[in-house]
Amino acid sequence: MSILCVGSVALDSVETPFGSAERVLGGSAVFFSAAATVFHSVQMVGVVGDDYPLDRLDFLTARGADLSGIERASGESFFWSGRYHYDMNSRDTLETKLGVFADFEPKIPDAFRGARYVFLGNIDPTLQLDVLDQVEAPEVVACDTMNYWIEGSRETLLTLLERVDILLLNDEEVRQLADEVNLLKAARWVQARGPRIVIVKKGEHGAILFADGWLFYAPGFPLEEVFDPTGAGDAFAGGFMGHLARADSTSPAELRRAMVYGSALGSFACERFSVDRLRDLGAADIHDRVEAFRQITAFETRVPAEEHV
Amino acid sequence: MSILCVGSVALDSVETPFGSAERVLGGSAVFFSAAATVFHSVQMVGVVGDDYPLDRLDFLTARGADLSGIERASGESFFWSGRYHYDMNSRDTLETKLGVFADFEPKIPDAFRGARYVFLGNIDPTLQLDVLDQVEAPEVVACDTMNYWIEGSRETLLTLLERVDILLLNDEEVRQLADEVNLLKAARWVQARGPRIVIVKKGEHGAILFADGWLFYAPGFPLEEVFDPTGAGDAFAGGFMGHLARADSTSPAELRRAMVYGSALGSFACERFSVDRLRDLGAADIHDRVEAFRQITAFETRVPAEEHV
Repeated sequence: MSILCVGSVALDSVETPFGSAERVLGGSAVFFSAAATVFHSVQMVGVVGDDYPLDRLDFLTARGADLSGIERASGESFFWSGRYHYDMNSRDTLETKLGVFADFEPKIPDAFRGARYVFLGNIDPTLQLDVLDQVEAPEVVACDTMNYWIEGSRETLLTLLERVDILLLNDEEVRQLADEVNLLKAARWVQARGPRIVIVKKGEHGAILFADGWLFYAPGFPLEEVFDPTGAGDAFAGGFMGHLARADSTSPAELRRAMVYGSALGSFACERFSVDRLRDLGAADIHDRVEAFRQITAFETRVPAEEHV
Repeated sequence: MSILCVGSVALDSVETPFGSAERVLGGSAVFFSAAATVFHSVQMVGVVGDDYPLDRLDFLTARGADLSGIERASGESFFWSGRYHYDMNSRDTLETKLGVFADFEPKIPDAFRGARYVFLGNIDPTLQLDVLDQVEAPEVVACDTMNYWIEGSRETLLTLLERVDILLLNDEEVRQLADEVNLLKAARWVQARGPRIVIVKKGEHGAILFADGWLFYAPGFPLEEVFDPTGAGDAFAGGFMGHLARADSTSPAELRRAMVYGSALGSFACERFSVDRLRDLGAADIHDRVEAFRQITAFETRVPAEEHV
């Protein structure tokens, strides 16, 4: 059983205050899979142009990714370039060339249609719906989206949400989607439309999972160097879904663990350009970071009778 | 042994999207003490004008606060009015009238000079230094400050920091003080100038304690209604210092607990206008909120051998 992942397979050029990288591996499906394959196998679906160096994805194959759903089309690959500012929390998009991605129509290979865990990367919700129509009996459908679709494809997105179990989006986006500033209320608004779980990503401030009557807050891991935040959200999703698929459970305990693994992978993604840090991750790195998360959040209180005046 | 607290004792008029309050109890010393006295006794030093309804502080006296250091001067009390916007994260100051606070020269009563725990609310660092000169042998000095002093009284502030154990400030302020965007590095910059502990407050995103080689992240408690965030930072400081004084320890375990109590009290402060919620707090409320903090942050991982692929 693999996780089915549909999203962009791109080339990115990134400028940061610390350096720049030209035409490096990018795209939601690539970041997701680079993180998820640390824990579980992934079946990737996407499209690239003539120019894409698919051999640079060999490390994913070596970790159990099946790239047979990545179609090669005639034309240029999806290209994005951006520049981060000094505080690393804001960026300017310098150029977006959709290339062959503009005509992307996800075709799920027969071998992938039995997927039980599905991740729909941030693409047109019409395409996300098309993917679900091609999957036989998905059990856990996670979906990312963005303000562009919330504004421009609201009705389609709402139709999609009826079939989504876990929606991932950032704090600004969930407020926009629900037209509600309070995150608890915004998450509840989304939950009433389908997803039983809403994960609100807050960048350096961490991520909150809203479930049925409970929530879990994973802090942003304080990094000495935020080198390049590109793809951190997709790496979060990859760590999160990778753990759930490995555990083959969405129990509260596994969802909590998945949040920590997601945060760990998201933090690693920021430490180097592209998927460079995710590619080199060993089990010890992940174990150490999860333990670090525990160290920065764990506290003990005394027995209640002694605890308060 | 009481906590010595020096700061403003003010009247606030607050407008929020949910309502407004006129000339209600405010000021750093009041919010701090309303939170700290839940755990420990406090000696307050401040100044009010002829117009201040000191009897409205009787609830503090009932909880063990000594108000004999609050001087009544001829003139008007410190008055602040502000308006919060829909997102509750930004506010406009409508009016600030310093009144008798403009000539405030803290005089520490003899009975307070033996204080071992000291909280210096956000006032002119020259006055904060004056306070320390009047205290015999303080063991734990915590200090708040703001961008106004960082910009205008930088040298005095740096002199003060040499005598401070715990500096509390928000993320924007610590970045400004250290001229460093990265919070880990900014905190280390501050620590090199005196305070062995730096607490960075991030509003709804929580607070991070930076100590010697370790840190602790207390998330912002997700509230259904953020009614009025005024004074939340001082209530945080009160809960934090109140717990430390009660435990009479700054061990890592007590500092972690203190962060959770601080966050709990800060979150309660937001639930009603002024100190209204802090005044009514019972032990069960605090116990329940601390348990809620544990619920939203606690996770278990399996034994390392099973934990990772």
